[in-house]
Amino acid sequence: METVSTNRSHGGMQGVYKHQSAETGTEMAFSVFVPDHAPGAKLPVLWYLSGLTCTHANVTEKGEFRAACAQHGVIFVAPDTSPRGDDVPDDEGYDFGKGAGFYADATQEPWAKHFRMRSYIETELPALIAQQFPADMARQGITGHSMGGHGALTIALRNAGRFRSVSAFSPIVSPLSCPWGEKALTGYIGGERAAWREYDACALIEDGARVPDMLIDQGTADGFLEEQLKTHLLSEACEKAGQSATIRMQEGYDHSYYFISTFMAGHVAWHAERLKA
Amino acid sequence: METVSTNRSHGGMQGVYKHQSAETGTEMAFSVFVPDHAPGAKLPVLWYLSGLTCTHANVTEKGEFRAACAQHGVIFVAPDTSPRGDDVPDDEGYDFGKGAGFYADATQEPWAKHFRMRSYIETELPALIAQQFPADMARQGITGHSMGGHGALTIALRNAGRFRSVSAFSPIVSPLSCPWGEKALTGYIGGERAAWREYDACALIEDGARVPDMLIDQGTADGFLEEQLKTHLLSEACEKAGQSATIRMQEGYDHSYYFISTFMAGHVAWHAERLKA
Repeated sequence: METVSTNRSHGGMQGVYKHQSAETGTEMAFSVFVPDHAPGAKLPVLWYLSGLTCTHANVTEKGEFRAACAQHGVIFVAPDTSPRGDDVPDDEGYDFGKGAGFYADATQEPWAKHFRMRSYIETELPALIAQQFPADMARQGITGHSMGGHGALTIALRNAGRFRSVSAFSPIVSPLSCPWGEKALTGYIGGERAAWREYDACALIEDGARVPDMLIDQGTADGFLEEQLKTHLLSEACEKAGQSATIRMQEGYDHSYYFISTFMAGHVAWHAERLKA
Repeated sequence: METVSTNRSHGGMQGVYKHQSAETGTEMAFSVFVPDHAPGAKLPVLWYLSGLTCTHANVTEKGEFRAACAQHGVIFVAPDTSPRGDDVPDDEGYDFGKGAGFYADATQEPWAKHFRMRSYIETELPALIAQQFPADMARQGITGHSMGGHGALTIALRNAGRFRSVSAFSPIVSPLSCPWGEKALTGYIGGERAAWREYDACALIEDGARVPDMLIDQGTADGFLEEQLKTHLLSEACEKAGQSATIRMQEGYDHSYYFISTFMAGHVAWHAERLKA
């Protein structure tokens, strides 16, 4: 692991790092905020998965999470959204290929070699975080935005017991039911829709997966709400399955970091409450 | 005035606007955050002047001021740092020309026509803000970063009584005494150094200008501290002149928005206390 930058901020250290990933076969960048803490202490970890077109940098610069993470003593990890580099295949659209890994392990060509974001986020990067940072991996929470909200929900649902807390900002709740999801999963996983269910939060809940609780914020003025995000499908799936969930429609808020940053401190506090030692 | 964008954020509205400036002869962009307020109410205004290379966008995206401004009911105005456009002369350096107006009215060619940032910030833009926003212009505070800290201090010192509060993040305290200032003022104002004193916070204080109080935060790990910023000159000028000032050296912090955002909420609260009705 190589340190790209460190900046003191909000009583902690905001770092950006890169490493050679075995899963993606590329160099991967990510950011980590570590609040000041007693020597030898281990802190809980909150994962933040970003949305389409983003890198680690968007939330690191605009997310307004550091004050809350410092206050509650929570490490904040923000990975990239796809492999990068000249050798990595791409698509003309902003919603497929680079910047759009969908937190899936691709099985289709030419994506299968590099687009292994599921294994990268579930397995490889956590091992590196555990090794390099003062992280108590028994106390992990996960959140994310849009495609990253999809990532947070599906990863938590598939890995029962690993995350004490899961939340999301304007998540894609059902890739099976929206154009973004259909394009990405057809491309990465192939046309057999039954295979998509493990990448669909609503389908996972329908199929029996559970998390202790979830917190969702969704803006009512989000231009993607109706066609892509379809929050109501998650409400219905949770209600039908008896999955505990707090799903809040936030009046007048859109899909941007102006929305995310507004509710970030609340999400950090919500996770911190569940990540107490 | 034309609205470029509005985004609901932190219980208020973050807008970006542009207008044709008579002073600069160009289109100028700026951002304004207006917290939710009672119909007909007028709110105090905090001006934020940005540093070299910046536009309104840097602080708007990274400044973490909205939560505090909403809490305290303060309008936050962030102008650009220079005229822009193909007709505007520029310099190869990042520290002169576009993005580096130094809040001066240029007298030298080819700068005199467009580089009128002093008059733009002191006169033209306040009139527009008073006209277009629910701003109580009897309750104004001003702050800024680096070159913008220089702007905030000198504008407040030259306009006695206009600002109830002035603060700065890592300000250039004496353009007479640093390479950035010498380059900019030679270029915009000419080689007669006596004419620079009205653009130098330390010289203005030495020459008798006063503000009620000032709050300065400066990082000790700021790479520009020793050669350009020279905070100690302001401490000495204030002490010698009996000018009240709180100048805080913040251990380990650098010149970036990771530093600014850390102390922003504190500055907003400090201004709000002084801007009460």
